[in-house]
Amino acid sequence: MTSTLPAALTAARTAVDPELRKVIGKLDPDTRGVCEYHFGWTNADGSPNGGGGKALRPALVLLSAQAVAPNGAQAVPAAAAVELVHNFSLLHDDLLDGDTSRRHRPTAWTVFGRPAALLAGDALLGLATEVLLDSTSGDAIASARALCAAVRSLIAGQNADLDFEHRADVTLDECLHMADEKTSALLACSTSIGALHVGAPRETVERLHAFGSELGMAFQLVDDLLGLWGDPEVTGKPVLSDLRARKKTVPIVHALTSGTEAGRRLGELYGKEEPLTEAELREAADMVRRAGSQQWTQDECERRLAAAHQHLPRATGNAEAIESLTELAEFIVRRQR
Amino acid sequence: MTSTLPAALTAARTAVDPELRKVIGKLDPDTRGVCEYHFGWTNADGSPNGGGGKALRPALVLLSAQAVAPNGAQAVPAAAAVELVHNFSLLHDDLLDGDTSRRHRPTAWTVFGRPAALLAGDALLGLATEVLLDSTSGDAIASARALCAAVRSLIAGQNADLDFEHRADVTLDECLHMADEKTSALLACSTSIGALHVGAPRETVERLHAFGSELGMAFQLVDDLLGLWGDPEVTGKPVLSDLRARKKTVPIVHALTSGTEAGRRLGELYGKEEPLTEAELREAADMVRRAGSQQWTQDECERRLAAAHQHLPRATGNAEAIESLTELAEFIVRRQR
Repeated sequence: MTSTLPAALTAARTAVDPELRKVIGKLDPDTRGVCEYHFGWTNADGSPNGGGGKALRPALVLLSAQAVAPNGAQAVPAAAAVELVHNFSLLHDDLLDGDTSRRHRPTAWTVFGRPAALLAGDALLGLATEVLLDSTSGDAIASARALCAAVRSLIAGQNADLDFEHRADVTLDECLHMADEKTSALLACSTSIGALHVGAPRETVERLHAFGSELGMAFQLVDDLLGLWGDPEVTGKPVLSDLRARKKTVPIVHALTSGTEAGRRLGELYGKEEPLTEAELREAADMVRRAGSQQWTQDECERRLAAAHQHLPRATGNAEAIESLTELAEFIVRRQR
Repeated sequence: MTSTLPAALTAARTAVDPELRKVIGKLDPDTRGVCEYHFGWTNADGSPNGGGGKALRPALVLLSAQAVAPNGAQAVPAAAAVELVHNFSLLHDDLLDGDTSRRHRPTAWTVFGRPAALLAGDALLGLATEVLLDSTSGDAIASARALCAAVRSLIAGQNADLDFEHRADVTLDECLHMADEKTSALLACSTSIGALHVGAPRETVERLHAFGSELGMAFQLVDDLLGLWGDPEVTGKPVLSDLRARKKTVPIVHALTSGTEAGRRLGELYGKEEPLTEAELREAADMVRRAGSQQWTQDECERRLAAAHQHLPRATGNAEAIESLTELAEFIVRRQR
């Protein structure tokens, strides 16, 4: 697994951060403070902090726009918009899931309280449209509409994800559909909105969307695997947290519906009233592996990544750009977190 | 006090409901179900329910657009957008305040759970921009930007409102500023966004904004008075709920900062660690009255209403439209809820 950061990520961070800081600067001081903490720019006491996320989505926006349009650099507002939507969803997700840690730091709601974190999420969602509409170049209406559609998918996926926790009969198809809505939709938006914003032809936008959609699924499958076997030191999340919360992620649902003895035992554990013990959690993870679902998920991830790559040469003849996007896609899927 | 509904409200409901239903129809079934319940279109079990809110804001959008632009009827998407933002804020407000009843029905979160209500609010905020951007006529960018600015104010006001609950030193100016952000900003957006959407001149838009801003403050002051002395049968909220939650509404802060003996006693009650008894709540309300703050708030409300009316003739020469807007403004301020 590679761990050096592709240059595209650093470049995206440099290009997008000023735009993000500018638009977040429009907020009232209280709401802004929560957002700045969440973005890793400040500590809980407001003092500066060098941190920040990996800018995966902004990098995808900028690279894909540059790959297909000579004025791709004008996609910075689109890159900022996607990053704002992503962070709106993180703020609200952490509230919904009661997660206390993110990127190795206490989540915003644990520091500022639930109401302030909820409102900060609302604010970021509003700013996501605003940053596009404020942009003086590019097709703001087309890109903002694409973003709104992705937000609808994201919400549908989050709703399904929560719903699954209370259902014993989730099928693999339902689970893949949920992952598609929860994660792939915003990734597909990331790889196409920049091209849309700078006026690339429709077919090009659609190819890039298809690339991001497959990549997004591969990304989610890696996330699901890390949720079971990731190193907490690296992921920043408690070990086996997905099983503890009885999440129905893809490998788990694959195991539950595998018809194997291991899957049956996993279902038994998931059916228990009381919280699972540490030993039971480890057993549950082992049942996912024994059901062949770890392997299947890894294979499916590779299939999705290969499918993603196939869309690129049909979107652009820019070999250098294809190489950068390919490198970034590989990084995303090979990451430990 | 008048209780017959102005014709403009019924007309707005008729004009805007199809647009609202269409855009809410874009959501996944789970999220849509929560929204349809919240809008009063369905019961908790999904069966149809004739209800719905009073469409105050859509009526203001449509009337003000028609007053200043021959193509004012094209403002329907703007009317829907404002109603979506209003309802996004209600869904999240009810969560933040833990309110269990709204419009004489259980709040959405009590029926569908907190996560589903939070996501439904998110969805409505996203749809608010989307309904504007989907509109084929009108200046979608200008109106969507105005809406985003109002959303920022709304969030700032909600944050301040929550913050005030934990502060003993809130000044009247701070409190009026909070009311301005929390309520007036969206009302001012309501009375100007329609004109903006259909391309009215800038000065006209500004006059209408000023009209809505004053009206919005009058509206909030009435709300604050009803929060203290409104009939629960009419308001649909428990009696003295603002005092129970130690809210810092305008009349309460006016009393607390009045320098009177009654204000001092109110401060004493608000400083108590334990929840106030029913007798103490009644005493607190009486102290607001005795401090002269009920009267001051009523007077301030009249001053704001008069100031609002003065802006109208400068916005339009359309006497019939001024009459309709005046009638609606009076209805809003004279309402019992």
